[in-house]
Amino acid sequence: MRRTALTIAFLVGLNAPALAQKAEIEAVNAKWMQFFNAGDFAGIASLYTEDAVALPPGSAMIKGRAAIEAMWKGMAEQVTDPKVITLDVKSLGPSAAREIGTFSLKTKGPDPKEVTGKYVVVWEKVANDWRLAADIWNEGK
Amino acid sequence: MRRTALTIAFLVGLNAPALAQKAEIEAVNAKWMQFFNAGDFAGIASLYTEDAVALPPGSAMIKGRAAIEAMWKGMAEQVTDPKVITLDVKSLGPSAAREIGTFSLKTKGPDPKEVTGKYVVVWEKVANDWRLAADIWNEGK
Repeated sequence: MRRTALTIAFLVGLNAPALAQKAEIEAVNAKWMQFFNAGDFAGIASLYTEDAVALPPGSAMIKGRAAIEAMWKGMAEQVTDPKVITLDVKSLGPSAAREIGTFSLKTKGPDPKEVTGKYVVVWEKVANDWRLAADIWNEGK
Repeated sequence: MRRTALTIAFLVGLNAPALAQKAEIEAVNAKWMQFFNAGDFAGIASLYTEDAVALPPGSAMIKGRAAIEAMWKGMAEQVTDPKVITLDVKSLGPSAAREIGTFSLKTKGPDPKEVTGKYVVVWEKVANDWRLAADIWNEGK
């Protein structure tokens, strides 16, 4: 079974480390969404590296867990129901990867709108855990 | 002299590979700006990896050198005088790095405006050359 999976991975041009990284990263993204929906912004911040940088559209870049926690807390006052879809994970070595994906979310208020966009995340492995190290997104997909 | 530079690098928390990568990446960025100003979009495309992805705000992501060449050619009809400033290069290994920086450019037309923003580039070393592998930016800095 494992061999079959590896053969399929080879045939589609992936490799086992990249496949494993993608699954691990998708699991962290799932936690990210759970934390957001639960209003647990300290939880979200814990998924970033200590020195992570977030680059939200329309404002300055934001450095470090505490600032990132405050950013998402502020964002949650304006938007809801974020969904991220991982399109591609490229392994950059045993402890780094870059992810490309798309997202959607809904604005709050009397006239809610869906906003869609795309993102790049640079992931770093800290001990055994993948953590977001750079997180940038923009609209349009 | 070299020893002094390395000592200073150590003191400010950098390391020699990261410093070298930053200088090499800034040199490629300088070429990028030269090519743009010269209208040489094939030259710009040559600075990207074959399978590079560009993620411009407001439109779909763009894959591969030919599409990236066409994107910048189209962009040059609307904007001019791009300037990028590298703020930070983080080594992700001998053949990968992530850059964070800011940019400015001017819109063309009767009422030109300055647009400023920030970006993340994932760089990959191909043979001896650093190449842009993922390039995403947004407004605000």
